[in-house]
This record gives sequence, C-alpha cells and structure tokens, in this order.
Amino acid sequence: MNARVHPCEAALASLPPRLLVAVSGGVDSVALLESLVRTGRQPVVLHVDHGWRPESAAEAKQVRALAKKHGLKILVHKLRTTKRNEAAARAGRYAFFAEAAKKLRLRDVVLAHHADDQVETFLLQLLRGSGSSARGMEPETKRGGLVLHRPWLALWKKEIVAYARARKLSWSEDSSNADTRHRRNLIRKRLLPYLKKLTGTETPRHLWRAAEIARAENEWLDELCAPLANRRELPVAELRAAPLAQQRRTILRWLQARGTADIAFADVESVRRLLTDREPAKVNLSGNRFARRRAGLIFIA
Amino acid sequence: MNARVHPCEAALASLPPRLLVAVSGGVDSVALLESLVRTGRQPVVLHVDHGWRPESAAEAKQVRALAKKHGLKILVHKLRTTKRNEAAARAGRYAFFAEAAKKLRLRDVVLAHHADDQVETFLLQLLRGSGSSARGMEPETKRGGLVLHRPWLALWKKEIVAYARARKLSWSEDSSNADTRHRRNLIRKRLLPYLKKLTGTETPRHLWRAAEIARAENEWLDELCAPLANRRELPVAELRAAPLAQQRRTILRWLQARGTADIAFADVESVRRLLTDREPAKVNLSGNRFARRRAGLIFIA
Repeated sequence: MNARVHPCEAALASLPPRLLVAVSGGVDSVALLESLVRTGRQPVVLHVDHGWRPESAAEAKQVRALAKKHGLKILVHKLRTTKRNEAAARAGRYAFFAEAAKKLRLRDVVLAHHADDQVETFLLQLLRGSGSSARGMEPETKRGGLVLHRPWLALWKKEIVAYARARKLSWSEDSSNADTRHRRNLIRKRLLPYLKKLTGTETPRHLWRAAEIARAENEWLDELCAPLANRRELPVAELRAAPLAQQRRTILRWLQARGTADIAFADVESVRRLLTDREPAKVNLSGNRFARRRAGLIFIA
Repeated sequence: MNARVHPCEAALASLPPRLLVAVSGGVDSVALLESLVRTGRQPVVLHVDHGWRPESAAEAKQVRALAKKHGLKILVHKLRTTKRNEAAARAGRYAFFAEAAKKLRLRDVVLAHHADDQVETFLLQLLRGSGSSARGMEPETKRGGLVLHRPWLALWKKEIVAYARARKLSWSEDSSNADTRHRRNLIRKRLLPYLKKLTGTETPRHLWRAAEIARAENEWLDELCAPLANRRELPVAELRAAPLAQQRRTILRWLQARGTADIAFADVESVRRLLTDREPAKVNLSGNRFARRRAGLIFIA
C-alpha cells in the first residue's frame, strides 16, 4: 500500500459520519468495515445470521470478534426463514436494518455492493423482462426510514480483494450463493465468463458503463414523470399529449405508487391503450384489480 | 392463411404509398416485397450485389426475376468493396439508396429488419460499451435525404419464415453472414442460444421489451437534450444545473453534432468535468481536437 488513499477508502469520502454497516463476513463487507474504520468512522455493525447454512454460526462469531477488535457496537439478527427463500430473507434483512436504525436513532446503512454486483444486477434486470428499464443499483436509495449507501459501485471485486489482502484481513467464503441466489449465480458463474470469452475481457466494463448511463437516465426520467405519476388518477388528455416513453413510465410509476404488484410491460401497454382507444374502458391488472377510464381520468379499482 | 390480414401485412399499414424497398434475396426481404405487393403497393426494388460472394450474381438474377414477376422497377448496384469490410459495404449500400431515391424523387426506403435483428442490435450496443445508451433500431430513421422505415421490428423471424412458406416464396439462404458480420453472428449463433438455455426461451422477448422501452426513452431524452446540444457552444452554468443524465446526453449529442468521431463514455465524462472543475480548462478528444472552456462556454477547437 502506498501513501495515497486507497480507492476503497477514497470512495467513502461523502458518506455521513454516523452509520450502520451490514457485514456478512465475506470479503466485501469485511473490507468495507476495515475501510470505514481506517477513515475514522465508528459504524455500528449489523450481521444477519441466515441460519440455514451449517457455517452461519461460525460466521456470526467471526463478525462479533471483528466488531469487538475495533470496539464497535454490533447487532446480530437470526432470520427465522428455514427455507432457502431469498425474497423472504431479503425482506427479513431490511426489516432488521430498519429496526436497528430506529432503535439507535440512525438512518444510514452502508452496503458493500461493488461493480461486479452492479453488472450482475443490470443483466438480471435486462433478462427478467419486467416493465421497467434495466438500470442497476443506485448509490443511494431511500427504503422505508433508511438511506442505503453503496459507495463501492464503481470498484471491482478484484480491487476489493486486493485491498483485503494488503490489509491482511480474514474473511469467510460465502458458500450460500450457489444455493440461495440461483439466477444471479447463473449470471456470475456462467453468463459473465461466457461473455468475456465471446466478446472480450472488457465486456463487464462495457456493461458497467451501460448500467451507469441507464441508472442516471432512469433517475432523471423518474423525476420528470413524478408530477403525473404521483396523482391519484391519471389525466387522460395530458398524458396522451406526452411522448410515448413518458406515457409508459408515468403509468408504470403510477401503478407502483398505487400498490399494484408484478407489473409487466403488457400491463403498462394495456393501461396506455386507455389513453387512445374508445373500447375497452377497463383493463385487468394483477391481484383482481383493474384500471378504468371515466370522465377523462384513469383510476384503479 | 386465414382471412384475417397477416401480421406481416398488417404491420405495413402506416407506410407511405410510394416506396423503395431493399431486397437482398434472403427470406426477410423477399417476404417484405411480397407483403408490400399484396397490400397494394408498387415499390421500386433496390438490390446490392456485394460481389465478394460466389453466389451473389445468382442472387441478383433471382431478385431481378422477382421484380419482373411483379412488374416492378429494379435498380441493382454492384459494390466495389472487394474486402469483406462491413462498414464500407454499409456506407456503399446507403449511398446507393440515397442516389436511387434522388433519381426517382422518392425518399422512403423500407427495410426488413425484424425482432430478432432488434435483439441482436440491442445486445451489440450493450456489449460495445460506447458513450450512448443501448436502444436498438428505430422504426423510422432520417438518414441524409432518406427516411428508413422498419415496420417489422415487432415481428419475429419465425413469423416471417412462416409467412414466406405459406405464400410459397423462394429465397436465398444468406451465407455471407458468417464471414461479414462477425460480432453480430457471435451474438446470433452463440450468445442468444446460450442465453435461451441459461435463462429460458422467453429471454429474447424480454430483451426485445427492454430494447423497446430503451428506444422510446432514448427518443424522448434526445428531444429534451436537443435545445442545448444543437448550440454551437455549451453554456456551462445552464448545463451544470441540469441532472447528471442530461449533462451526459447533451454533451454526447453536442460532440456528435460537432462532428467528433468515436465518442467514448470517458470523453463525455472529461467534457463534463469542465462544468465543475477549475482545472484543466481543456480536454483532448479524438482526431487531434479538444474541448475548451472559456467565458462560461465550452467549445470545440
């Protein structure tokens, strides 16, 4: 390590001073904790014990020891999901973060997501074919009462591992991935290596840039659509006069804001036809709900 | 074929009456010609003889016979590119289209690009990692004095082949692809089959939808950026106040409008730093050109 600030530490410069940090015990989060401490912070450590893995108790112990070494407060939460249900585990994790933050009167949680994670997320979103654009993760997301920070989205895993090695850290290899995050692991372990072979080793960097461009555009487009999307009813004439992409995104965000689950592109397009077609004046949505046009407005019932 | 209008023909409804159509002799363009004639049009046929392939003379002959059968005017252009240079061939093709259109006082050219082509183009753009967003092809593009129409972007190759079979058409198998369009063929013949195996047969549809969403958003964003991007100089204070994505896209479109070639994401970001950083006030661009900030404006020299 030379005297210049390492990129892993430099990337933390704009974080707020009082923080929670999620530490699984894997190399990313162990390196994140190290870099937070080395840049003068005393974050509260959050660890989730997923329970279903044989080594999870040992990992929790290791993270506790790490927190103790640095003199940091630690909260460990044991998830009750016995099945390998990633959606439930995720919900449980964030519920724990929110509860911990509330108790400690904090709101900022730092996560170790990095550039490789960003590329995987972007590919997952692209291949999933939902009604939204693919855009990767945000460096800052509000979620419930929390602000989630991802300061490492521009750093590659290998830079983080190099940092962890240079700092002589020890970490657990995360063996749960293969079991719990099937689709993401297909992307990581099969698609990305295949792409690198097929279209060159620079491919992940190209995808990262595509995600970064899309992410910023997504943010801007959401801002532009918010005034209409946040209304209770959509005004037909006003939305009909907007560009196609604005119609689609406004309908998508409006459906989401009104609590509609699993919005497919086809749902957005069905609602969009209410802007122009005389018939039908009603389209079905998931969960026995429907969108209806009446008196120049579209509403959900 | 039932009595309802086939999707291949229905998709042509909004084309202008007087047209040029590019016919290579492959299934897509032969089916396109058929569907144009069946919907009552008399397009002028354009055929490019790429010359370097052994079967190209036979193909030209076949396309001539097809035009004759329908009583259509045909123009054949023999490209002089002896090397398998796809960029030169493409430029030669469009130069021929433009010349033919001018001579005949027409401006609308119909192309047979379909949904599979769209997915390939989208993946190519994503994996290429340029400064632009991936967005696929437009259903209508202005290019020089031409308007290029792609009415079949929502139809899959297999629907077109089924149409061609039902109409008992004959066509040439395009053997040039493997040689002349290396990267696109890697996508078509290796990446897409791999993706279907890995993430499901619906993957091309998901990618098509992602491209369609991105395409419409791209169009809208370009409109929003045009007022600044079309200026001779970029106004620093005004652009600095804009969202990140607007800064990036405005700079990209401005560089393109000012004739800068091969704009990478890094070039856009360099110019963007001129908005905020005091030093340097000048950044290098490709082709020995540079962007400079002076008196609140950014200009190219």
